[in-house]
Amino acid sequence: MERLRQQMEFILEVDKLKNITRQTWLSSGERKENDSEHSWHLALMCALLAEYANEQIDVLRTMTMVLIHDIVEIDAGDTYAYDAAGNATKREREVQAANRLFHLLPPDQAEYMRGLWDEFEAGETAEAKFALSLDKIQPILLNDASGGKSWREHQVKVSQIMERNVRTPEGSKELWGYAGKLIEKNVKNGNIEC
Amino acid sequence: MERLRQQMEFILEVDKLKNITRQTWLSSGERKENDSEHSWHLALMCALLAEYANEQIDVLRTMTMVLIHDIVEIDAGDTYAYDAAGNATKREREVQAANRLFHLLPPDQAEYMRGLWDEFEAGETAEAKFALSLDKIQPILLNDASGGKSWREHQVKVSQIMERNVRTPEGSKELWGYAGKLIEKNVKNGNIEC
Repeated sequence: MERLRQQMEFILEVDKLKNITRQTWLSSGERKENDSEHSWHLALMCALLAEYANEQIDVLRTMTMVLIHDIVEIDAGDTYAYDAAGNATKREREVQAANRLFHLLPPDQAEYMRGLWDEFEAGETAEAKFALSLDKIQPILLNDASGGKSWREHQVKVSQIMERNVRTPEGSKELWGYAGKLIEKNVKNGNIEC
Repeated sequence: MERLRQQMEFILEVDKLKNITRQTWLSSGERKENDSEHSWHLALMCALLAEYANEQIDVLRTMTMVLIHDIVEIDAGDTYAYDAAGNATKREREVQAANRLFHLLPPDQAEYMRGLWDEFEAGETAEAKFALSLDKIQPILLNDASGGKSWREHQVKVSQIMERNVRTPEGSKELWGYAGKLIEKNVKNGNIEC
């Protein structure tokens, strides 16, 4: 049962994702969320919001993609969206992590999961575009719900948000429209800087 | 956009699942996991281990089921497997929670998600049987990895584990076989009481 042993090794290794803290606060503002919680939230959003994808998507493929999209952060850590220095080395750190982590799996599943991660990173397929939109919109929902806690903490400017979300409408114009209204509201009330 | 408003209300409400603590320790033994982390782990296990299901399963349906299977605990709380008093009132508390939570969604999605939860609870379909097996096996993996921390803490007896897992092989004989070896090992080393 070498195959099952490899699968179980991977399943235990990724338990570490529960300790990778993100910069987004829970909606309650009690604490910051971690990558596994974020990934669960995206997968559920994928099940409920797939109807808003610009192009028809394979929901299972997209859901699996969001479940594994942050696994590389077990080795590479979470790089905050507006951390310029961290973002300069992010890609290299994450590729090294992907090389190690996905290859704990049996070869066919390693190839499939690594392929899904590469697809997410490239953001060219309908599934990757939608997954990327969810990944960007979920923290906007939580930030708005927590009273803009993370935006205030990092003194985020609306221009930074817009720059970071230049491709978000490619996954879903409708969901981006919804998020846009939340951003507008938080610019007005001062949670996001002009 | 009443439909999207309802979906977003549900998506924000279930953010509370991140604060429902379970009795299972992370594999590192640092802290106990919460329901959203557990649900993420099950969904990923579903993607990787579906090949071991006794009967062929619809993976998307099973994955969605495990993503929402614990949502009722937002209102009903986590009831520990070996808490007899808690388990006596668990069903009633959880049905009330399901009535409130799923009906935040638009009617068609409320019906679908509530149906998935009822299906999981009944444990009769191939998908529900496999989901229930994963739900039982994941804490065994984590307990073994943490040195039996939760078993020791609650002085769990092997007879209690066997009773609780009487239906686990219905989802996957192979995965139950793997878990059985871990249980045996932990009986031998004293983490589980005879």
